[in-house]
Amino acid sequence: MPVSGSPRVSDFTVIPPRSGAAFRLPAGKTLTVVDPEGHQVADLLAYSADDVREVISNGRTFDYEETIALTAGHRLWSNRSRAMLSITEDTVGRHDFLLTPCSEATFRHFYADKPVHRGCFGNLAEALEPFGIGPDDIPTAFNLFMNVPVDGSSGKLRVLPPTSKPGDRIELRAEIDCIIGLTACSAYDSNGGSFKPIHYAIT
Amino acid sequence: MPVSGSPRVSDFTVIPPRSGAAFRLPAGKTLTVVDPEGHQVADLLAYSADDVREVISNGRTFDYEETIALTAGHRLWSNRSRAMLSITEDTVGRHDFLLTPCSEATFRHFYADKPVHRGCFGNLAEALEPFGIGPDDIPTAFNLFMNVPVDGSSGKLRVLPPTSKPGDRIELRAEIDCIIGLTACSAYDSNGGSFKPIHYAIT
Repeated sequence: MPVSGSPRVSDFTVIPPRSGAAFRLPAGKTLTVVDPEGHQVADLLAYSADDVREVISNGRTFDYEETIALTAGHRLWSNRSRAMLSITEDTVGRHDFLLTPCSEATFRHFYADKPVHRGCFGNLAEALEPFGIGPDDIPTAFNLFMNVPVDGSSGKLRVLPPTSKPGDRIELRAEIDCIIGLTACSAYDSNGGSFKPIHYAIT
Repeated sequence: MPVSGSPRVSDFTVIPPRSGAAFRLPAGKTLTVVDPEGHQVADLLAYSADDVREVISNGRTFDYEETIALTAGHRLWSNRSRAMLSITEDTVGRHDFLLTPCSEATFRHFYADKPVHRGCFGNLAEALEPFGIGPDDIPTAFNLFMNVPVDGSSGKLRVLPPTSKPGDRIELRAEIDCIIGLTACSAYDSNGGSFKPIHYAIT
């Protein structure tokens, strides 16, 4: 079912499987991210366009929003305690802000029997480099559609396939001028072993 | 009850209430942090002494340790996927790695009726400045003795007084040469409204 006021199919840009993109998102604009085939993850980073040392922070966000389960109505905060993005629409309600982007090191650790891939970390680093953002500037990402349940009593976490269905989406409105990094995830566990594209639009 | 092989009282350095310290911790050395009066929090940061752009990362740690509840037997990882510190002893078993250090902004947000304080964030920034580490280089800290239960089903978190009793301690062995930032916490909620010192020793 189309979301009211949502972008048309022709407005969307495709991020091919196991790749990434970076782009400007001016204040007031809305970023719509769609999982077109379902069960796919998109790692999202946000930096202040005025000074890329200001960056999305899971710790500040957890503190101000008082939850680790972020969905419509919540804001994503920077390391300088400014609201960067507001989640205005969310047809999934299950995302992760605990884990860092998959990387060569995590592929070696978790998938020792599979080919090493540079992962979302390498894809983000390449896409963000033209904006003056280096690998060490990549913090814990907001991982759209990623399904990481936490056992409240033991603290143990698991990485399960996303609950997103084909066409599910999340919409984020920029509160300040942002540089966004966004991927179609490369890891096996986070998407149930199948690599799929991610679509996005700016309206 | 003294922990076997633990430092003598005379070996400890005192961090006064609502202040911070920074120091080198060479590879192989053990940092012991004691809560001398109980119910106090100490925010801990770690940077590689060889390159302070390598820093402790909650996202990498949660990923590799597969839990948000870190205690003896777990390691704390850097943004470059290297183990920085191993937790070798822990008489409390309840710490937090979700929240960023309290700051002027968090005091305004959470304690609007109380005097603004620069918080652990300001104390860490001042203590780390001689090592070439600036405020924007401060990520989510590992908050020793901080008690932040998470409801696994709703995701909601709460900041409760620590469960630490007088003399409780945690010991962390450096796996690489580190610069450590450490505080006696300044926030009201994290320590039940009473500000107390923190003691530490290097052996």
